[in-house]
Amino acid sequence: MLVQFPKIGILGGGQLGKMLIDQANKWSVPLSVMDFDSNAVCKNHCTDFKVGDLMDYKTVIDFGSKLSIVTIEIEKVNVDALKFLEKNKVKVYPQSKVLEIVQNKVKQKEFYKNNGIATSDFQSFKTKSDLIRSIIQNETKLPFIWKASRFGYDGYGVKKINKISELEPLDNGECLAEEYIDIVKELSVIICRNHSGETSCFPVVEMIFNPKSNQVEYILCPPRISEKIKSEATDLAKKVSESFQHIGLLAVELFLDRKQRLLVNEVAPRPHNSGHWSIEGAYSSQYQQLLRALLNLPLGKPDIISPSVMVNLVGSKKKSGPVIYKNLEKIFQINGAFLHLYGKPISRPNRKMGHITLLDKDLENAYQNAQYLKQTIEISSK
Amino acid sequence: MLVQFPKIGILGGGQLGKMLIDQANKWSVPLSVMDFDSNAVCKNHCTDFKVGDLMDYKTVIDFGSKLSIVTIEIEKVNVDALKFLEKNKVKVYPQSKVLEIVQNKVKQKEFYKNNGIATSDFQSFKTKSDLIRSIIQNETKLPFIWKASRFGYDGYGVKKINKISELEPLDNGECLAEEYIDIVKELSVIICRNHSGETSCFPVVEMIFNPKSNQVEYILCPPRISEKIKSEATDLAKKVSESFQHIGLLAVELFLDRKQRLLVNEVAPRPHNSGHWSIEGAYSSQYQQLLRALLNLPLGKPDIISPSVMVNLVGSKKKSGPVIYKNLEKIFQINGAFLHLYGKPISRPNRKMGHITLLDKDLENAYQNAQYLKQTIEISSK
Repeated sequence: MLVQFPKIGILGGGQLGKMLIDQANKWSVPLSVMDFDSNAVCKNHCTDFKVGDLMDYKTVIDFGSKLSIVTIEIEKVNVDALKFLEKNKVKVYPQSKVLEIVQNKVKQKEFYKNNGIATSDFQSFKTKSDLIRSIIQNETKLPFIWKASRFGYDGYGVKKINKISELEPLDNGECLAEEYIDIVKELSVIICRNHSGETSCFPVVEMIFNPKSNQVEYILCPPRISEKIKSEATDLAKKVSESFQHIGLLAVELFLDRKQRLLVNEVAPRPHNSGHWSIEGAYSSQYQQLLRALLNLPLGKPDIISPSVMVNLVGSKKKSGPVIYKNLEKIFQINGAFLHLYGKPISRPNRKMGHITLLDKDLENAYQNAQYLKQTIEISSK
Repeated sequence: MLVQFPKIGILGGGQLGKMLIDQANKWSVPLSVMDFDSNAVCKNHCTDFKVGDLMDYKTVIDFGSKLSIVTIEIEKVNVDALKFLEKNKVKVYPQSKVLEIVQNKVKQKEFYKNNGIATSDFQSFKTKSDLIRSIIQNETKLPFIWKASRFGYDGYGVKKINKISELEPLDNGECLAEEYIDIVKELSVIICRNHSGETSCFPVVEMIFNPKSNQVEYILCPPRISEKIKSEATDLAKKVSESFQHIGLLAVELFLDRKQRLLVNEVAPRPHNSGHWSIEGAYSSQYQQLLRALLNLPLGKPDIISPSVMVNLVGSKKKSGPVIYKNLEKIFQINGAFLHLYGKPISRPNRKMGHITLLDKDLENAYQNAQYLKQTIEISSK
């Protein structure tokens, strides 16, 4: 019998936290948020906002100790502090053991290998010098994908390397050299799992990336792939979820290559950009599913209400500074277009400032409208 | 060109305000709220919360003067203060002239009469003694519906009178005696109108009342009425909207009587309980439409995404005190059931504490689930 909701905290106060709060507000579930930025997006939306360094052991413990449940909306948090909280009866979802693997791309790749999960071939190196040596000795073949082992995101910390000189500007630390995959499509499957082990799987979506920034730009649901591939992608994601035994969300990013192979690229144990469409497009959004998992409630129905296309709105390359929105009103002339603005006061090149989800019975129509809006709206500064 | 959102204030901080804030938060539109209750529902959700008496002239002016746009979520506000704000270039939607008519049920009835809008016959009286005299002189026929002229709501200030003695406990002030209507169904049509005069009309819904409390208990969309009645109801509501020339929402409550006559009961120039279903059930909810109207943006598509049933969750008759929710988890086992809890700390008999919207292709199925949840969930106190 649920008589009242327990106290939940979120580490991180960005747009993912904000959208979780939007859902929590519907149920009047109180949420505390901590972020290093005193102007974080969540600031005005949560019950209780604290400024603090998420990588600092004591700060995270102080924040979490007052709560029943702690979750994350960013992976860059102090895992040792989470371990301490877990030992002291705070529920930490995703669990520290999951986050520990995900935070380190070398560990993550080894996890896939050890669990028999299809992923691209890889080599790991303690330093950039080791990698360069391996290339010279012809043990690492060009081209390959370089990845920093820790805390890359949104196209940072990832680079295609065609020749040794391209490594020069990159970080010297631990890294991966991943087999270059001839990608036909990138897909994502989000799975939610609660404390009782119940799981619920969102439909496979297609991710379309901006070729310059390497950021995801559009999400198409349903994806333009065969039923066979859909089913294989779902099965693969379920295997990943089963292996992690996570509680909460797990977004599984997949490559489909020219040989029709499906390979796990990486995972995120939190709300994911590829699931924003579900706020309007699914019966139970990724945020509602996460909240249910945190509260150990029965999971909802992640089925599609309508075909959906999501488009990210990012800061223009031209300028940084106090944000100005141009042509935003164009959105309001398109039926079934749902605007989300994150309320970030400063626009920077490629900074995620908002998104639009378009519901339309005709997916191609929604995609065309999304492309039109992407070209028309400008988020910039004076 | 919309470069940034203006500052909007809401007079009233209850659940209607909260749901407007939920929508505003998606666009990061800052909202200020004022309510007399320091624990009002909106308190933790808005950008800026003030405690103040909405009926106090100076308090309302002080609040509104700092804003570009002022709206209401409750009708009991100081209209003279709104007039002052209008003269001082603050946009007040609904306009003071609309609110002035709506606040007084005698004026409202006369407005319908003067504008040729079908409504039940009525007589108005300055005092209860005048009414009693009229009954004795056989100028007012029993039975009739007694209504206090000002500030009745949710079944308060309204009573069916079968004999004179039933008037005894009632207020002595100005009142109406309305013709008793043999009601077959109660319907509602919500219309949104923006500053440019553009209007958008939500589908007609059926309102089912609790026979004891006289509060609306269920909303069914679509309603179980003929296409002809639907079309007539929509036309009648449009005529009412046109007559008021309101900006923002206008919920038009209608009676359908045994002779298949449609009569306007009353209106509310704000978000309305009969439109809660639209948050999940329509492409653009009543809250989104209102926000668009406030910002003078093109109105959205109010079409139905799915048949919907809304059920109100009210405080149990047994007890008042700090709220306890029982069997809430039953909601989470029903697919397409969307919970809204308003976060009121104190439960009181018949107090609106939350609602559930059920989306289902089969309306009857949704209605049965709504009835099951209504019977199963208990909101009470220790």
